Amino acid sequence: MVTQFQITLPNYRRGYHLITGTIMQSLPELPESGLLHLMIQHTSAALSINENADPAVRNDFEYVFDKLIPERDPNYTHDTEGADDMPAHIKASMIGPSVTIPITNHKLNLGTWQGIYLCEFRNYGGRRNIFGTILS
Amino acid sequence: MVTQFQITLPNYRRGYHLITGTIMQSLPELPESGLLHLMIQHTSAALSINENADPAVRNDFEYVFDKLIPERDPNYTHDTEGADDMPAHIKASMIGPSVTIPITNHKLNLGTWQGIYLCEFRNYGGRRNIFGTILS
Amino acid sequence: MVTQFQITLPNYRRGYHLITGTIMQSLPELPESGLLHLMIQHTSAALSINENADPAVRNDFEYVFDKLIPERDPNYTHDTEGADDMPAHIKASMIGPSVTIPITNHKLNLGTWQGIYLCEFRNYGGRRNIFGTILS
Repeated sequence: MVTQFQITLPNYRRGYHLITGTIMQSLPELPESGLLHLMIQHTSAALSINENADPAVRNDFEYVFDKLIPERDPNYTHDTEGADDMPAHIKASMIGPSVTIPITNHKLNLGTWQGIYLCEFRNYGGRRNIFGTILS
Repeated sequence: MVTQFQITLPNYRRGYHLITGTIMQSLPELPESGLLHLMIQHTSAALSINENADPAVRNDFEYVFDKLIPERDPNYTHDTEGADDMPAHIKASMIGPSVTIPITNHKLNLGTWQGIYLCEFRNYGGRRNIFGTILS
Repeated sequence: MVTQFQITLPNYRRGYHLITGTIMQSLPELPESGLLHLMIQHTSAALSINENADPAVRNDFEYVFDKLIPERDPNYTHDTEGADDMPAHIKASMIGPSVTIPITNHKLNLGTWQGIYLCEFRNYGGRRNIFGTILS
C-alpha cells in the first residue's frame, strides 16, 4: 500500500534544525510496518538523521560544513543568486535530499539518539516542502 | 508490486551530468503512486539530485569535490588504478550510489528545480549501469 | 509484503569494514524481487556501498575523512564525549545511516565490485544495531 502526503515546514533560519516532532505531527496514521520516505523538494536544503539531544551538535554542523565549502570562492561560476547559493547546492548533494526510516508497531523506528534534521543552507530559504511516501 | 529494469547509460566524460531526460525515457510505465529507486552498480560514480537549470552548477561541483578530495595525495595507498581512482571511491560514498524518488500521478515527483545527476568521477569510466526498482 | 529484522554486529574497531558477508548471513529468506533497506540506529557510525576487493581502499577512507573532519578543532562546542565524537557525527551525516539495495532472483543485486561498508567513526563504538526492512 502507498500513502503520500506533503508537509510544508515553517520558516527556518539558516542552520541545522531538529524537526522530528514537526514531522511526527504531520504524518498520517502509520501502518504496522513499512518504510517512510521523506524527500525535500529543493536543491539548497537537505534532510539527515543525527544526534537529537545536544543543540551544540547542530551548531558544529554549521561550522564544519561552512568551513569545508566556503562562500565567495572566486572559482565558483554559479554566483548570481547570492554567496550562500553555490555552497548550498554542494552541501545538499553531500548530505542528500531524502531519508528513509523504518516503521515498526505503527511508529518511526529510529535509534534512541536519532532525530530528523532539516539542513537549511540558504540565508533566506523560505518555507520548504517535504514530500512523504509510506510503503507498507 | 515490484518492477525492475536496467539502464545502461551512454559514455559520459568525467563530471556531473543531468540525466533526468535519459532516465525518464528509459522508465517502464509508472504506477499511479509509489517509489522509484535507482542504484548505480559501480563504486567510482554516484547518483544525486540537484539543480537542473544552470550548467555552471555542475561545473562548480567538479571544482569543489576535486579540491576537497585531491588526486595524487602521497598518503593514498590504493594507487594502482590511476590517480583519479581513489578520490572517485571517496566521492562515491560521500554522494551515494542511489536516489529514491516518489512517483505521483504516474510521474516522478521531483521539485521544480530538481534533476537527476550522474556524477562520473573517473576520467574514462565507460558505460555505467543503473538498476531500477519501482515499488507500488 | 514487509519483513523486518535486527542485526547486532560484533565489535568493530574504528575504521571502514566490509560487512557484506555478515549481512548476508543475517538476512531472512529474500523474496524474488524487492528492496532491502538497512539503517544503522546510531549517530556516530554509517553504512555505505563501495569497493569490495582491496582493503587499502578502506584504509584510505579513514585517512581522507579524518583529514577532512579533524579532531580537536577548538571551534567545536560539542566536545564532552571525546575528541572522536563530534567528527563522528559529521561523518555520519556525510555518508548517511542507511543503504537501500535491490533484491533480484532472491539475491542482493549489487554490482560486481560493490560491498556493504560499516563506517565506524568512534574509537570504542561498541556493538552496533542495524535495522532491516524488506519490501516486496
